[in-house]
Amino acid sequence: MSSHRSVTSGVQEAALALTQAALNVLNGAVHPLKSARVMGRLVLRPVHRPGTPPGALIHTGTRKVDEVRLRILEYDAEGLREEQLSSVTEALSIRDSTRVGWLNVDGLHDEEILRGIRDHFGLHPLLMEDVASVGQRAKLDDYDDRILLSLPMLSFHRESLTLEVEQLSLILGPAWVLTFQERVGDVFEPVRERLRSAHGRIRSRGADYLAYALVDAVVDGYFAILEGLGDAAEEMEGRVIEDPTPEALLGVNHLKRELLILRKFLWPLREALGAFSRTESPLVSESTQIFVRDVHDHVIQVIDTVETLRDLASGMSDLYLSSVGQRTNEVMKVLTVMASIFIPLTFLVGVYGMNFEFMPELGIRWAYPAVWGVMLALGGSMFWYFKKSKWI
Amino acid sequence: MSSHRSVTSGVQEAALALTQAALNVLNGAVHPLKSARVMGRLVLRPVHRPGTPPGALIHTGTRKVDEVRLRILEYDAEGLREEQLSSVTEALSIRDSTRVGWLNVDGLHDEEILRGIRDHFGLHPLLMEDVASVGQRAKLDDYDDRILLSLPMLSFHRESLTLEVEQLSLILGPAWVLTFQERVGDVFEPVRERLRSAHGRIRSRGADYLAYALVDAVVDGYFAILEGLGDAAEEMEGRVIEDPTPEALLGVNHLKRELLILRKFLWPLREALGAFSRTESPLVSESTQIFVRDVHDHVIQVIDTVETLRDLASGMSDLYLSSVGQRTNEVMKVLTVMASIFIPLTFLVGVYGMNFEFMPELGIRWAYPAVWGVMLALGGSMFWYFKKSKWI
Amino acid sequence: MSSHRSVTSGVQEAALALTQAALNVLNGAVHPLKSARVMGRLVLRPVHRPGTPPGALIHTGTRKVDEVRLRILEYDAEGLREEQLSSVTEALSIRDSTRVGWLNVDGLHDEEILRGIRDHFGLHPLLMEDVASVGQRAKLDDYDDRILLSLPMLSFHRESLTLEVEQLSLILGPAWVLTFQERVGDVFEPVRERLRSAHGRIRSRGADYLAYALVDAVVDGYFAILEGLGDAAEEMEGRVIEDPTPEALLGVNHLKRELLILRKFLWPLREALGAFSRTESPLVSESTQIFVRDVHDHVIQVIDTVETLRDLASGMSDLYLSSVGQRTNEVMKVLTVMASIFIPLTFLVGVYGMNFEFMPELGIRWAYPAVWGVMLALGGSMFWYFKKSKWI
Amino acid sequence: MSSHRSVTSGVQEAALALTQAALNVLNGAVHPLKSARVMGRLVLRPVHRPGTPPGALIHTGTRKVDEVRLRILEYDAEGLREEQLSSVTEALSIRDSTRVGWLNVDGLHDEEILRGIRDHFGLHPLLMEDVASVGQRAKLDDYDDRILLSLPMLSFHRESLTLEVEQLSLILGPAWVLTFQERVGDVFEPVRERLRSAHGRIRSRGADYLAYALVDAVVDGYFAILEGLGDAAEEMEGRVIEDPTPEALLGVNHLKRELLILRKFLWPLREALGAFSRTESPLVSESTQIFVRDVHDHVIQVIDTVETLRDLASGMSDLYLSSVGQRTNEVMKVLTVMASIFIPLTFLVGVYGMNFEFMPELGIRWAYPAVWGVMLALGGSMFWYFKKSKWI
Amino acid sequence: MSSHRSVTSGVQEAALALTQAALNVLNGAVHPLKSARVMGRLVLRPVHRPGTPPGALIHTGTRKVDEVRLRILEYDAEGLREEQLSSVTEALSIRDSTRVGWLNVDGLHDEEILRGIRDHFGLHPLLMEDVASVGQRAKLDDYDDRILLSLPMLSFHRESLTLEVEQLSLILGPAWVLTFQERVGDVFEPVRERLRSAHGRIRSRGADYLAYALVDAVVDGYFAILEGLGDAAEEMEGRVIEDPTPEALLGVNHLKRELLILRKFLWPLREALGAFSRTESPLVSESTQIFVRDVHDHVIQVIDTVETLRDLASGMSDLYLSSVGQRTNEVMKVLTVMASIFIPLTFLVGVYGMNFEFMPELGIRWAYPAVWGVMLALGGSMFWYFKKSKWI
Repeated sequence: MSSHRSVTSGVQEAALALTQAALNVLNGAVHPLKSARVMGRLVLRPVHRPGTPPGALIHTGTRKVDEVRLRILEYDAEGLREEQLSSVTEALSIRDSTRVGWLNVDGLHDEEILRGIRDHFGLHPLLMEDVASVGQRAKLDDYDDRILLSLPMLSFHRESLTLEVEQLSLILGPAWVLTFQERVGDVFEPVRERLRSAHGRIRSRGADYLAYALVDAVVDGYFAILEGLGDAAEEMEGRVIEDPTPEALLGVNHLKRELLILRKFLWPLREALGAFSRTESPLVSESTQIFVRDVHDHVIQVIDTVETLRDLASGMSDLYLSSVGQRTNEVMKVLTVMASIFIPLTFLVGVYGMNFEFMPELGIRWAYPAVWGVMLALGGSMFWYFKKSKWI
Repeated sequence: MSSHRSVTSGVQEAALALTQAALNVLNGAVHPLKSARVMGRLVLRPVHRPGTPPGALIHTGTRKVDEVRLRILEYDAEGLREEQLSSVTEALSIRDSTRVGWLNVDGLHDEEILRGIRDHFGLHPLLMEDVASVGQRAKLDDYDDRILLSLPMLSFHRESLTLEVEQLSLILGPAWVLTFQERVGDVFEPVRERLRSAHGRIRSRGADYLAYALVDAVVDGYFAILEGLGDAAEEMEGRVIEDPTPEALLGVNHLKRELLILRKFLWPLREALGAFSRTESPLVSESTQIFVRDVHDHVIQVIDTVETLRDLASGMSDLYLSSVGQRTNEVMKVLTVMASIFIPLTFLVGVYGMNFEFMPELGIRWAYPAVWGVMLALGGSMFWYFKKSKWI
Repeated sequence: MSSHRSVTSGVQEAALALTQAALNVLNGAVHPLKSARVMGRLVLRPVHRPGTPPGALIHTGTRKVDEVRLRILEYDAEGLREEQLSSVTEALSIRDSTRVGWLNVDGLHDEEILRGIRDHFGLHPLLMEDVASVGQRAKLDDYDDRILLSLPMLSFHRESLTLEVEQLSLILGPAWVLTFQERVGDVFEPVRERLRSAHGRIRSRGADYLAYALVDAVVDGYFAILEGLGDAAEEMEGRVIEDPTPEALLGVNHLKRELLILRKFLWPLREALGAFSRTESPLVSESTQIFVRDVHDHVIQVIDTVETLRDLASGMSDLYLSSVGQRTNEVMKVLTVMASIFIPLTFLVGVYGMNFEFMPELGIRWAYPAVWGVMLALGGSMFWYFKKSKWI
Repeated sequence: MSSHRSVTSGVQEAALALTQAALNVLNGAVHPLKSARVMGRLVLRPVHRPGTPPGALIHTGTRKVDEVRLRILEYDAEGLREEQLSSVTEALSIRDSTRVGWLNVDGLHDEEILRGIRDHFGLHPLLMEDVASVGQRAKLDDYDDRILLSLPMLSFHRESLTLEVEQLSLILGPAWVLTFQERVGDVFEPVRERLRSAHGRIRSRGADYLAYALVDAVVDGYFAILEGLGDAAEEMEGRVIEDPTPEALLGVNHLKRELLILRKFLWPLREALGAFSRTESPLVSESTQIFVRDVHDHVIQVIDTVETLRDLASGMSDLYLSSVGQRTNEVMKVLTVMASIFIPLTFLVGVYGMNFEFMPELGIRWAYPAVWGVMLALGGSMFWYFKKSKWI
Repeated sequence: MSSHRSVTSGVQEAALALTQAALNVLNGAVHPLKSARVMGRLVLRPVHRPGTPPGALIHTGTRKVDEVRLRILEYDAEGLREEQLSSVTEALSIRDSTRVGWLNVDGLHDEEILRGIRDHFGLHPLLMEDVASVGQRAKLDDYDDRILLSLPMLSFHRESLTLEVEQLSLILGPAWVLTFQERVGDVFEPVRERLRSAHGRIRSRGADYLAYALVDAVVDGYFAILEGLGDAAEEMEGRVIEDPTPEALLGVNHLKRELLILRKFLWPLREALGAFSRTESPLVSESTQIFVRDVHDHVIQVIDTVETLRDLASGMSDLYLSSVGQRTNEVMKVLTVMASIFIPLTFLVGVYGMNFEFMPELGIRWAYPAVWGVMLALGGSMFWYFKKSKWI
């Protein structure tokens, strides 16, 4: 209960921080371009280097942990064993246990460990290759008695409004779940908490329900990101309307790009979870599929919102363009008003600056005030005309 | 009959008020941005807070009523019992009654009550969680002997042209219907009226027909909103053409956004009602499905119109942009005409303002009027040229 | 034969009139905005007023005829009876006759008559409600032994280039067809003519073929509208290129809107006729379905053309925008040329207008013509430069 | 062989001519608008005039030949008979012959002949109506023992870059093929050549293979058109970049329109050939369907290319718009530089042109050169500033 | 192992070179238009020249090798034979061998050789025609006991950022694979390396696995191209923001076009590999299909990235347009500020340059400094106003 509360307040903190970050970018504190490592997230390194035989267990991302960390969690309705392991061989007992086992692996660079797991748990070489090569599209691969679910674990870099993506690979077997992450630190703590507390449904259900609970925790994290992006969008719209500087446009562009990337990761996930909720694999019970359907609905909801945010961002670009056009128009009007009033007057005073010997007006006493009068009348009527045309 | 009439005139009043509201926004009485709580409607708070076990009955919206209000309505062809309840336990009798029962719950914040209803009516935990967590996509979830239909109950804030969304959850059981709303006050009064009057088909039909009648009442409400948005659109188009101020563009943008939000809520509803009209659940009779098909058609019609309005609003943006371009063009023409006529003349008078000792023209008697003649001819011919080029 | 000829020449007349109307709008004779009752055609009044029980026979449109007109036509291969009826009861004999009967009803406001027909012909309440409430999407509803086909009967207001829409409801029973229209006057005269003339296939075929013939007559009418819109589009394109005034853009916008509305009505019709051509209802024979397939093809062809016209109209908007940009560019060039040539010269004459006591040039005899020479050279070379840059 | 070679070189000639035509249009030799009979190709005249009973054999296009020309070709593996017929009755023998017969009809205006063919070959009235009324979408109609394939025969008017469309109707019976064209002159000569030469597969195969060969010849013709359009597109892109005149934009627009029309004709053809390749009609053997699949692939390839060309043309429009914007920008810069340098200087010389009695500077000996110095410094520094800002 | 390493470093070298090439184009070293042989890649020459009978073996591309090179590789788990052949007849033994045979043909212009292969391996004439005529869409054609897979082998011209396309045709028979390429030099070296090394799965599997391995090698090559394009895109975006010259826009346009072409080649490949992974042909074992599914996933991933890059490039165009608009706006501001400050002042000094006899101000002693004071105040306040409006 207490952990639950702290989690909730953590989310609130996160939302606050995100808003702060949005404001930072908007205020130019962080130049959005500086953090625009778009390509690294979009164009993924070749899944396996050209020429590598399929099934090679070579980690394709950058190594993010010093040492692979293995953590095991074994439970049934009666009890729970939780252990940090020093070697992979200790973990292998869960395959044949009747209790539900969950092995979590943080770090993918140790080929030895991956091979050990692959061989012991009887995983298809291609399945294991997909685990090692990060940057996969989300997908569900059904290898009869093992199911691989790859899904993106998104986080949000608070200072630069930038999404970070990590790949989570989840393998579901008859009574065990294996999860692989690139680094230590994840969104699964609440699930562990629920497992540790004796009451609650989760301990009395199978490995498929555990898999669902993990996926659900990942998808829940997306909502916080959405909220952050939504707040940023709202801020940006205000700025585009009130102060359409080029920086505002860059901000909108940055937002669009993050939404583009988010969308790129979510669409395949939708498919993958759809397949998960409809799979006829004996590994997934029907009662669990009702829950998977629910998380599938959540992903659709997230995608809906991303699409709507994209539409909003598009509207902002248009608004910006028309604001700039409008401003140019206004600048033009000022110029035209100034020029149109004074250019004829300047001509007039030029006339009486001519040096002709015979200019009868020059000798007339009231000619000078008369010229002033004419000029005031002329200038005034032009002013009145521009006023009427709403140019001033 | 009299109630029917008052309803109709109510709709007319509403339409009037909407038009008024549209005018208000257009006249700047209400700044559209002030009411732009877009994100609160788009980015929905996490359905359950990260880490909450699925099935938790925590209301995710803001509490909108002080106390939960329970209202029961039980009827068959012979008679009808209508009662406001003080505690949830009284309501539970309808489960086993042979008459059709309808329990309406206004307010979702009391976990106790929700749990009571869930347990007594045998509802799936996920179903009940969906009821409590507002901000769902419209959907139909078929739990064998209970059907959950979530649908958005839209209303229109008259002063700010802003849509408000409330979630209606409708649970259909063998002989009862449960409805859950976030606040008191709904669109169901006409349905109650029809139930109270002894004649009419509705009393002699089952709970599925009641569910249809409620959904139909909600969907009917959409048409009034469409009419309001349509009137606003028509007003705005006139403004964009006649007076393309930035405010007009903001108005169009506001309209686009409301249409975007409306669309976001209606598309899932289309699917949900489609599923409802095709469901093979024994809870829904075939004769009722003909009616559901009809309300499904209405939703498609609403969506069609929203899409067309979106196209119209897009056209308005384009029109605005080209209006601004056109105006810039006109301003430019004025400037160019003024400058082109007077700049050469100013040069000319400058020439005779020079102080050279030997300028033969200066001594000639008719030189001054001759210069005037030349200037008039020059100015006149430029004027004529610009007239011919249709610049003036 | 003679009737056929008059029909053909009528079409030619119509096409001429449409072209004339297009020219009217283009020439500003009729301001397109004045006739822009868009919303009345787009946002349809609620199909039934909120709270009305389903199945109510309340006409939702504006009453367009004083009195309902009933017309009956009964025929078989041997003979034909045609009669204008004074009361609905006389019409009811056709239900049980072995001959094919066609009852046409002009005017929908008389609830009494509609109810009489509904009860006698055994029509589903929802079916009859759809007949009474105009503004339906085109649709085919299959009630086992009765088929309802709603389709839009389009006409073209010649002076304002505006589409008018009327709803035709066609009910097909075992040996009879009922048609409901909002006003007197329709496109069915040629069909009646073919029925009256003894030879021709139509008299020896069933009610389903009659239904097809009526639908075919309606769809044939669409081609004349297309031709009118196409002529208008061609005119407008010429104008946008030659004289891109704001009026031209308004015209294009008006055209786009009418195409949008046309499209909105045709897409559902496509579906409806597709369903008609594939229906497995015993009411429609296979040999008739070949003909329905043909009229379905025609609707697809109309939609294709509407889409292409929309693409063309889009292209016109773009062309307009770039024309305006181009013109602004040209205006700018004139200004720049004028200013660039004369501003330096004006400066130069200003120099020698200064009143310094010691300006040696002023006393030189050939200084004045020399200054003229310099100015001519300067102006000339700038002129030549601008000529070379193709600015003049 | 020799005929084959001449055909090939004919294609090369055609490609050259097309390129020449593209250049003509681009060089303004032919004004693209003059040849813009868009509507005549888009909005097709009503398939049958309103009120005409279905099945009427009235030619809906303009009569393009004086007299209908009938040409027969009958063959089997042993021999071939080729004859120009003077009356339709002579042609009818091929129906019952065991050899494969091909009757080609050039000209559709003679109702007598069409009726004769219809009755003798047992063709459905609607089928024959579709043959007579040109302007059909491409389609495959399967009347059990006769298949109608309508397809557009496209040619390219070399001087105006304009597509011309003619309708080819092909009717496939058990052992004969009927083809109907609007005018004399077609793309079938190579097929006839292959039939005349004794060797080659075509003589030993059935009527279905002949139908395929004819369709293949038509589709082959599309590639030459694509090449012509592609060359034009490439030329136009060069022009838009180097010399973005309004004519260049008109050219791009013309290209877009022709692509739009091409696309409108090809999409239905894709469907029609898809249906042909999957038809289960006994008229088409499986071994022939492999060939039809191949020509279907070619049409998809053509459509792909058309879509890509459309994308390219869109890109050109954008490029044009930004070029114009860029040029306006440059013109503005020139104006601003000129005005900014000389306007302050003109003011300065104006100051010393004032006639105040007490202006101490005027009497100072070095004041005049000092003013020049100041002005040169001012002008120079502004020039330097604009140079630095890259405005010059 | 060593070969593997050299391959990897080769890829790194390639990526470097690509980036360099992108920089070259951006720096104008290579004018993007010079290398824009778009049409040659888009509009493919007619697959067979009009009139050619289907099945002709005429190479439709340009001849790229002097002599056809034939290379054979035959293996089973025990051993491997690798040979360069001088004549086609030597190659034909692999048809009946029990070992897996792979015949690779470089060069397609020799009809004799193609016919020899076709006849010996029992290939359908259309299949072989597709091999000879390059420029095919990627496709899978299933001729019962032979499968043809055409796929584009893409490479990237490093200096001009231009894609080059070569067609690879792969024919899969019961125990052999034939591959046809247009020129010598391919991406298959790593596959050959794996075949040569005794260990590894590939030698113990069938011809279908070899086909997969070859396709996989081709698809792996796409990722390097993506990386190159992605780097170029990132560079270009920076340029568009910092220095929006027309060259930058041309670069973006060039990028868009290459992406368009890439997409045109990849979409059909997606379909083709999808068909390959689902084929029920006995030639492909189920265990191999799991691998094909994997390569299919890779292609989808590539397409996803191409689409996202296209979206990014679109965003760049918009950014460019608004940058130009913004710059025009800024230029306008400078002009307006200069003109607005000095034009009124010039008028004022003009006033006192008039030559009227009676201008009382002229005689006043402090009038001249007073005028200076007024002018400084006027100019200063305008300057302050523009500063406040953020125009300066």
